[in-house]
Amino acid sequence: MTMPAPARPGMPFDDVDTPALIVDLDALERNLERMADLAGRHGVRLRPHAKTHKSPVIALRQMALGAVGVCCQKVSEAETMVRGGVGDVLLTNEIAGARKLERLAWLAHEARVGVCTDSLANVRDLERAAARAGVRLDVLVEIDCGGRRCGAAPGRPATEIACAIAGSPHLSFAGLHAYHGSAQHFRTGEERRDAIALAGGLVQETLAVLGREGLSCRIVGGAGTGTFELEAASGIWNELQPGSYVFMDADYARNQKADGGRFDSFEHALFVLATVMSTPSPERAILDAGHKALSNDSGFPEVPGLPGAKYHRPSDEHGILDLTGCEHRPGLGDKLLLIPGHCDPTVNLHDWYVGVRGLHTPGAHVASVWRVAARGAIF
Amino acid sequence: MTMPAPARPGMPFDDVDTPALIVDLDALERNLERMADLAGRHGVRLRPHAKTHKSPVIALRQMALGAVGVCCQKVSEAETMVRGGVGDVLLTNEIAGARKLERLAWLAHEARVGVCTDSLANVRDLERAAARAGVRLDVLVEIDCGGRRCGAAPGRPATEIACAIAGSPHLSFAGLHAYHGSAQHFRTGEERRDAIALAGGLVQETLAVLGREGLSCRIVGGAGTGTFELEAASGIWNELQPGSYVFMDADYARNQKADGGRFDSFEHALFVLATVMSTPSPERAILDAGHKALSNDSGFPEVPGLPGAKYHRPSDEHGILDLTGCEHRPGLGDKLLLIPGHCDPTVNLHDWYVGVRGLHTPGAHVASVWRVAARGAIF
Repeated sequence: MTMPAPARPGMPFDDVDTPALIVDLDALERNLERMADLAGRHGVRLRPHAKTHKSPVIALRQMALGAVGVCCQKVSEAETMVRGGVGDVLLTNEIAGARKLERLAWLAHEARVGVCTDSLANVRDLERAAARAGVRLDVLVEIDCGGRRCGAAPGRPATEIACAIAGSPHLSFAGLHAYHGSAQHFRTGEERRDAIALAGGLVQETLAVLGREGLSCRIVGGAGTGTFELEAASGIWNELQPGSYVFMDADYARNQKADGGRFDSFEHALFVLATVMSTPSPERAILDAGHKALSNDSGFPEVPGLPGAKYHRPSDEHGILDLTGCEHRPGLGDKLLLIPGHCDPTVNLHDWYVGVRGLHTPGAHVASVWRVAARGAIF
Repeated sequence: MTMPAPARPGMPFDDVDTPALIVDLDALERNLERMADLAGRHGVRLRPHAKTHKSPVIALRQMALGAVGVCCQKVSEAETMVRGGVGDVLLTNEIAGARKLERLAWLAHEARVGVCTDSLANVRDLERAAARAGVRLDVLVEIDCGGRRCGAAPGRPATEIACAIAGSPHLSFAGLHAYHGSAQHFRTGEERRDAIALAGGLVQETLAVLGREGLSCRIVGGAGTGTFELEAASGIWNELQPGSYVFMDADYARNQKADGGRFDSFEHALFVLATVMSTPSPERAILDAGHKALSNDSGFPEVPGLPGAKYHRPSDEHGILDLTGCEHRPGLGDKLLLIPGHCDPTVNLHDWYVGVRGLHTPGAHVASVWRVAARGAIF
């Protein structure tokens, strides 16, 4: 259920209750502008992924800077975006189940709605739902370009699905979805380059087969924060769909380090503020932020304000700081900013963004408190 | 934000939208009764931990079976329990920060409120907050009995804190909190026995020093689902505080297996229902439940209905089933029950419990839909 906000606008930053999800608004705005510029420079469209921020407020800022719409992963996420004012949503995902398909189709009465598919059976379900709701849905074929998750096989199998879409009265074939999820987190630039080169070849092979059937792609979409520069420069993709660049997390920062700092276009704009709730011994401090305030699936958070401190051994409600490598030891009640290991599922644990101006300067104040509107939008 | 419920009472189980948090109501009730019986047989009080279920509905059922109150981990969790009708809450945790201490103290106007501490500085903060609110708080000293998380050192240091509590006009010294968190997940019974024997020795040592200061303990509390039989039989602890027994999860089931099935008093009562959203190749199926529907911090979920299937490589919104070891392959749109790796943080991802009668029988129906009232109660 929705909890009260841990802060109010105008409040000194030092008074924010914890754990709280903090946004450095200045860094966020620079990140939004940089990605818009990068897409513009490459002449590709930008459709940021809303699964990261789950906030129509941020989505509308992305669109004000030129994004053509947003991506969503779930129907409930798309509903939240559309009802928050976003007029163009793409479900970068297969949608299965009659109730979800019905909601998806009806949403097309309120906004432009696209969806991905990877099977003939799902095309039939989409057509049925669109016909019943009296709408026309944009449908993209997702191909497996190396991630071994969802996606039809490239080339002929994907083209058969595209033909079925094109032949469905309430569906429009809108293009290909070619997103290599696991490549985003390959540690070195070389691994990521190889993966996206391979994916690009599979897209081109599929485009050739589609062409022989007389089908062209309005959208060739994909790319995440770990690889988008490669897709943008490829001349193959025409729509970039990154999400995490708005906030950046510790895992993407580890990519940067492995690349010798080359991948440094974006700044950390998201933090979890935690309080030292116990200092039972000189070599450790206990924070009030564990699994329920931070997603630890991609490694533990960093503690930028306390050099040498290591967050480890989290439990549900506690994080333990190993202070053996620290010169300065925090005191009981001190508050520390943590950079989450993985931003998307961390955001999903919180009800509120606490937006701060001048975050890393003394006397910072809370500027805005936004709902994480699509928190829990898992269906 | 709170999402609409994925089901309504009376609906056939097959129609529940996914991902959904499913409770086998029959198994839940058997688990509640078994723990109440076990505590009664050992002559110890039961104060179940509400951080697992976060539901006053379940808390009140536990109290109807004899529990003396519930444990909470956060002030906001305690507020939710008290406002849901629970008259006795114990924060099994240190509370730091002026805003939280103020809320904690004011809650004592509505219910009996206890809290743990492990430092003299925190005792002073508790006294100040209780004095300002005009209440008297029960305060327990948490000792570190082997978990190396929070907790004062046993013996003399813990006793000094107890004396400070006893000398504070708005605090009552209520006893010792001796919970060995990490021991709950030690894999074998022998490891757990050794850990709790050691912890028991530290409690006894502390009780002896307290006794020399004329202090006695109304509560000697602790014990989780992995070890409670040891604390109950020890003659040292008089209050058991387990949480996970209500639901059981895959990690606790792994304890059972390591013990040759001895630890089998409780049944799996909690599941995440997921839909097969893609079947891109014969060796894998993709489920619509990833990190945002299941906490994977203690291992991946089990798939009891599909022998040989292995959930692996989850991402934010997807789980991949490896079907190479399966005879039966699920089809697109099929729904599967997953046993979460770790129940507490999984519950915290959902807004609703979907309670089902006769869950594993054909024709099962949804019997009740309960709010996860303290979901997101992290502060």
